[in-house]
Amino acid sequence: MGGVILYGSPISTCSARVLLCLEEVGAEYQLVPISMPTGEHKKPDHLARNPFGQIPALEDGDLVLFESRAISRYVLRKYKESGTDLLKEGNLAKSAMVDVWLEAESQQYNPAISPIVYQSLFVPKMRGGTPDQAIIDASLEKFKKVLEVYEARLSKSKYLAGDFFSFADLSHFPYTKYLMVTPYASVFESYPHVKAWWKDITSRPAFKKVSAGMLGS
Amino acid sequence: MGGVILYGSPISTCSARVLLCLEEVGAEYQLVPISMPTGEHKKPDHLARNPFGQIPALEDGDLVLFESRAISRYVLRKYKESGTDLLKEGNLAKSAMVDVWLEAESQQYNPAISPIVYQSLFVPKMRGGTPDQAIIDASLEKFKKVLEVYEARLSKSKYLAGDFFSFADLSHFPYTKYLMVTPYASVFESYPHVKAWWKDITSRPAFKKVSAGMLGS
Repeated sequence: MGGVILYGSPISTCSARVLLCLEEVGAEYQLVPISMPTGEHKKPDHLARNPFGQIPALEDGDLVLFESRAISRYVLRKYKESGTDLLKEGNLAKSAMVDVWLEAESQQYNPAISPIVYQSLFVPKMRGGTPDQAIIDASLEKFKKVLEVYEARLSKSKYLAGDFFSFADLSHFPYTKYLMVTPYASVFESYPHVKAWWKDITSRPAFKKVSAGMLGS
Repeated sequence: MGGVILYGSPISTCSARVLLCLEEVGAEYQLVPISMPTGEHKKPDHLARNPFGQIPALEDGDLVLFESRAISRYVLRKYKESGTDLLKEGNLAKSAMVDVWLEAESQQYNPAISPIVYQSLFVPKMRGGTPDQAIIDASLEKFKKVLEVYEARLSKSKYLAGDFFSFADLSHFPYTKYLMVTPYASVFESYPHVKAWWKDITSRPAFKKVSAGMLGS
């Protein structure tokens, strides 16, 4: 059997990031489900793959990788000839802009959007709990400031890193997809260029396919 | 005048990350100080460089970059021929391991160590405030769990990504350097391989030079 093995779950945001990359490049892969509710991610078999006990992890022969953005880079590099080149590492300026907006996702966008999704979707749907409205409200204020920067960027540039779709755009998908099934989806209405960008990237076949395995689809 | 321009401050952790890269590759550069106490990072000139109003930012001709890990990658790629190749992008497996441990720094190590440093060093020294001991204690517990994973890794591997020094090691420097001037430096005593790794990487000339411009030196 060829291809790589991804240990994860289609509903996990970090697994979805890697699945999108695998689909975008047309890689041959197998998804081995890791059950979070039964604590499978904290058991020895999985800790051998990821010592932090999180999903996803990727196996490619003897190589075992963890951290979704690192796995994604590996997948995009390995298959860049056969699929779309989403890192542009052959071009110094373009790859730098991909990295800038990938880090913006990791350090600015994600810390603001993830508590909103966690509280308003994961807490009630997966833990049977009540959302903490104070956390949601504070994160929404922070998220709006981030979206203002994105709106300015996307009013001058079709995609985040430039006039080409890249890993930087892709990496925003999982949490944004989940925001869209919460009552806070309407926050995008105030940012027309962000909204148009979202409509554009989610029309890609890979996004439709991965989306179908996520919550609220 | 040749070289790149870094807008930042030698005492800022994110600026120190980029300064280390510039020193490691022997790049020609100019450091233009941005004063945080006077709010220079939130003024139009700097917002044009980094719309999130943070330091550092880097200018190389028409190219303007922000986010320290993205700037660092650019610097390491641009000068890899003249200096040390700290990304190993020519090797699929090695570059993947650099990325894995760089993401471990960004997503696991940094979120645990930074509140300890912020509360025990920045709050009293730069803001004249009193540290929040509850935050320090909770972060220390989290940090010890991260250090256990690092100890296991570094007992099998001289550096984080393998038997070679890389950007993954380097990126841990700024916050760890500051931890070492707090009362919590002693936490490293329980992790001998982490301690030996720290001693090794801080003996590099670039680390000594950048360190000299930081707080508590």
